[in-house]
Amino acid sequence: MNGRNLETELAFAHRLADAAGAAILPHFRNNTDVENKAGTGFDPVTIADRAAEQAIRDLIAAERPGDGILGEEFPVLPSRNGWSWTLDPIDGTRGFIAGTPTWCVLIALTFDGEPVLGVIDQPHTKERFSGFGGSADLSVNGQKSLLRTSGIPSLDSAILATTDPYLFRDNERDAFGKIRSKVRLTRYGMDAYAYALLAAGGIDLVVESGLNLYDLHALVPVVRAAGGVITNWQGNDDFTTGQLVAAANSSLHAETLALLVS
Amino acid sequence: MNGRNLETELAFAHRLADAAGAAILPHFRNNTDVENKAGTGFDPVTIADRAAEQAIRDLIAAERPGDGILGEEFPVLPSRNGWSWTLDPIDGTRGFIAGTPTWCVLIALTFDGEPVLGVIDQPHTKERFSGFGGSADLSVNGQKSLLRTSGIPSLDSAILATTDPYLFRDNERDAFGKIRSKVRLTRYGMDAYAYALLAAGGIDLVVESGLNLYDLHALVPVVRAAGGVITNWQGNDDFTTGQLVAAANSSLHAETLALLVS
Repeated sequence: MNGRNLETELAFAHRLADAAGAAILPHFRNNTDVENKAGTGFDPVTIADRAAEQAIRDLIAAERPGDGILGEEFPVLPSRNGWSWTLDPIDGTRGFIAGTPTWCVLIALTFDGEPVLGVIDQPHTKERFSGFGGSADLSVNGQKSLLRTSGIPSLDSAILATTDPYLFRDNERDAFGKIRSKVRLTRYGMDAYAYALLAAGGIDLVVESGLNLYDLHALVPVVRAAGGVITNWQGNDDFTTGQLVAAANSSLHAETLALLVS
Repeated sequence: MNGRNLETELAFAHRLADAAGAAILPHFRNNTDVENKAGTGFDPVTIADRAAEQAIRDLIAAERPGDGILGEEFPVLPSRNGWSWTLDPIDGTRGFIAGTPTWCVLIALTFDGEPVLGVIDQPHTKERFSGFGGSADLSVNGQKSLLRTSGIPSLDSAILATTDPYLFRDNERDAFGKIRSKVRLTRYGMDAYAYALLAAGGIDLVVESGLNLYDLHALVPVVRAAGGVITNWQGNDDFTTGQLVAAANSSLHAETLALLVS
């Protein structure tokens, strides 16, 4: 892959996450900001989001000048070398505004459009989930542990997660309902953090739709490196559909996909 | 109120929360436990729950011998002096199993059945929300800040939370749907943590049903001390109905109640 050492790129991605967290945290649960949230034209989450993305873009421009950037807040910067960074400085902006500690900084490195390395970072709890190739880990305040998805083999013993059941369109909602009716229990409201917990073995299945590439590129390498299976609802890697299914293992993935396409 | 200094009782409640957290954390995101979660008779969350409640009960027996105890895991201990402790060692057991950092230790002190002091503690993130009388605060890893609910005056600019929209019974679901259709945005999956975030000014409204007294006693003093209004769906303090509405202020509470009872 064009000779890049992915350990080096991961260390760089961690510096990008550090810069993003430093830009965002002063705005998290900031009461002055919160008082202004009711649509007066001042939007604290957008300010934090942009400041973080700008900090990341500055570092990439300085140290990876030929790389492209796909971010939520600014126009696409085309890659001149095949490598590109996909950024969502605050995934879960609604949770951020509400003060929940489960919004995330998402950073992915892609090569020719394929995500090869991902970081899912929660600056408030200092939890950082990272992965590439066959190895993923969680660092909590600097202390590392390996990430490994669960061995739960079937829906009837699985923990399912989705952010908001009302985000599905009609036919999607029916498909999700079929899965929900079969699982052991369902959790809501976690955004990208749910995929990190899937990598960690707590959640067994995540089914969502309506996602943008910047919402999901970072999740793919982390989930796969931890042993999980992540595809669109047709079972392939065309993530422009916005439909995502992440499963702890191939057995659970196959059972879910059969319900999604039937 | 029988001469107790509530500052002293709060310090004791914090020691109870410390003991609970110490009993629970070894079981949180414990991969050995997780591997056994699929109904093999071994239930890590029950083990952690019981160990925590026992630790709390031991301290109360030693230092508040006449006080009663209402806990989730063991039989009621009647009070001999009017004072009683309401305990839920792990509120949000489903979130606990999934690995989300939003389950809570709930501890309330009641007098003649009325909750007068509450602690909502998240041991993993070291966030502790406490309140009694007219003062509530959040301690993060020992650093304190005052809790104050938001001034959002009406549903159209409010952030609503509920744990699981599928937990409502039919007529309840209709009532919730009316509220959901009017608010700015809705968040899910937070259990008691949502009430803590309401006290902190991030969430403006929580509407839930099916709660037990041990799920809610601790929330009442924290929300009220932070400036919020918390009642059942009829607007009074009979919490045995299990229906709870917590609002950032009386204006938002009145608008919500009108929709719940109509």
